[in-house]
Amino acid sequence: MVVESVGQGVTEFKEGDHVLTVFIGECMSCKMCKSGKSTICQVLGLEKKGLMHSDQKTRFMVKGKPVYHYCAVSSFSEYTVVHSGCAVKISPHVPLEKVCLLSCGVAAGLGAAWNVADISKGSTVVIFGLGTVGLSVVQGAKLRGASRIIGVDNNPRKCENAKAFGITEVVDPNSCKEPIAQVIKGITDGGADFCFECVGDSDMLTNALESCCDGWGVTVALGVPRVKPKISAHYSLFLRGRTLKGSIFGGWKPKSDLPSLVEKYMNKEIQIDDYITHNLPFDEINKAFNLMAEGKCLRCVIHMPR
Amino acid sequence: MVVESVGQGVTEFKEGDHVLTVFIGECMSCKMCKSGKSTICQVLGLEKKGLMHSDQKTRFMVKGKPVYHYCAVSSFSEYTVVHSGCAVKISPHVPLEKVCLLSCGVAAGLGAAWNVADISKGSTVVIFGLGTVGLSVVQGAKLRGASRIIGVDNNPRKCENAKAFGITEVVDPNSCKEPIAQVIKGITDGGADFCFECVGDSDMLTNALESCCDGWGVTVALGVPRVKPKISAHYSLFLRGRTLKGSIFGGWKPKSDLPSLVEKYMNKEIQIDDYITHNLPFDEINKAFNLMAEGKCLRCVIHMPR
Repeated sequence: MVVESVGQGVTEFKEGDHVLTVFIGECMSCKMCKSGKSTICQVLGLEKKGLMHSDQKTRFMVKGKPVYHYCAVSSFSEYTVVHSGCAVKISPHVPLEKVCLLSCGVAAGLGAAWNVADISKGSTVVIFGLGTVGLSVVQGAKLRGASRIIGVDNNPRKCENAKAFGITEVVDPNSCKEPIAQVIKGITDGGADFCFECVGDSDMLTNALESCCDGWGVTVALGVPRVKPKISAHYSLFLRGRTLKGSIFGGWKPKSDLPSLVEKYMNKEIQIDDYITHNLPFDEINKAFNLMAEGKCLRCVIHMPR
Repeated sequence: MVVESVGQGVTEFKEGDHVLTVFIGECMSCKMCKSGKSTICQVLGLEKKGLMHSDQKTRFMVKGKPVYHYCAVSSFSEYTVVHSGCAVKISPHVPLEKVCLLSCGVAAGLGAAWNVADISKGSTVVIFGLGTVGLSVVQGAKLRGASRIIGVDNNPRKCENAKAFGITEVVDPNSCKEPIAQVIKGITDGGADFCFECVGDSDMLTNALESCCDGWGVTVALGVPRVKPKISAHYSLFLRGRTLKGSIFGGWKPKSDLPSLVEKYMNKEIQIDDYITHNLPFDEINKAFNLMAEGKCLRCVIHMPR
């Protein structure tokens, strides 16, 4: 996005600055931000009610009625208002239509692999769900030198795509006779070192946990379930040495960490372009939603009219 | 225990050696043992069927009928047979009637605090269940320099005992008007850094997870539930940065690690004696079980007739 104007007291940005906007902010001064250990800012953390964090009001009105913010960013419009803590300044030479994927999807996957799981060289990694987030975990795992990167998805198109990103094997659970955790254990000598749930399905998270190995298996939850938000798992999975963690925005602190990811992209150390399978103008946004719902795209970038 | 005789091929022990026997062994050669990352030996791991690991047979007979092993150790008898991988040689100068507590309880708690959770200095720690295992986590936390060590137990006698071990505050959930997780969050500015479940109650494990802080809270499961072996927890607890781990035998590898714990005891770097609230002769073993069931003891050491 390009800054059009700034509010009172905002000194960090000026008109014309290029920014990435992020659904989770960084105030730099709360207990969480100061800890250096968390991305869940206490001031600009997950917005739930569609209101601006600072004063719990909305900045949008249509015919005198309030229109609410969405995910602190509200980017499906030509102009928006975001809290300065949810914007990250980047160089004007960086292609915004590519690095916008670092505002969530690609950054979320890379961070889950690097910051949260801390994948080690030579390890066996299983990714449940091969959308953009899952395939970004794949990229993160490959860059860490994982020796086997196994993808699990029941969409044959996604399985096919995945190979270009570094997946070494794919498993379609619908074509397996045994439960998926049994299948994974069978092909990995007892279970994977790391499993990632990128679907947003709590039963799949249980499967991921069961697919990890005894002793040191780590499962990371990235997906947000739309139904059944409780995960259920047998106690013994933990007693036998598994760890379950969650990852939101890959553990990145937006202002502190996103600039380095943008730099990695510009230096060709990470790739983003191949996740963009479609580009559509703003007035075809519903077509983009359909592509997503039908599992026919990875990321579709919406271009605003100039 | 004192070695009475050794089986064919056993060269590590001889008659008269003093040993600690352990419910989980260390073969030193399986994938788990060689990894250095797990205590769940693939050869001598958790015994379930009451049979010797090596040949899946029992070594005990009474009137021609098999009598099964218990926890690989079967120590409620004057003579027993254990796999050499489940015995750890110690100096004959070490008091067996004290360090026997390192065969499980005290070692399990110290290891959960040190190896599994890796408690850091100045942190806030909550321990659910103030039996010997819980109080050993307390000792571990204190030795790591935790600034607040909060105990949760509904047995007033255990709460009273706990203060001598380093507990700084106790909470009896039965005397609280709010759910225990709310109470803990209220007194810890949003949640503890580390929570330990030492009861063996899956609902309490959920409480422990909810009592941890966003961002970096770690919950460790030590207890083994007798009923309801499935833990259920809201997905968002993980997404907001919590980690759930399990601890079996505190992550210690018995042969590699127990000798150093014995040494720490002899050097007075850790304490064991205060966990022994009772001593009883073998023929009063049922009295010991009753003390345990009634929550009236910490550890009761059973002394064999000489």
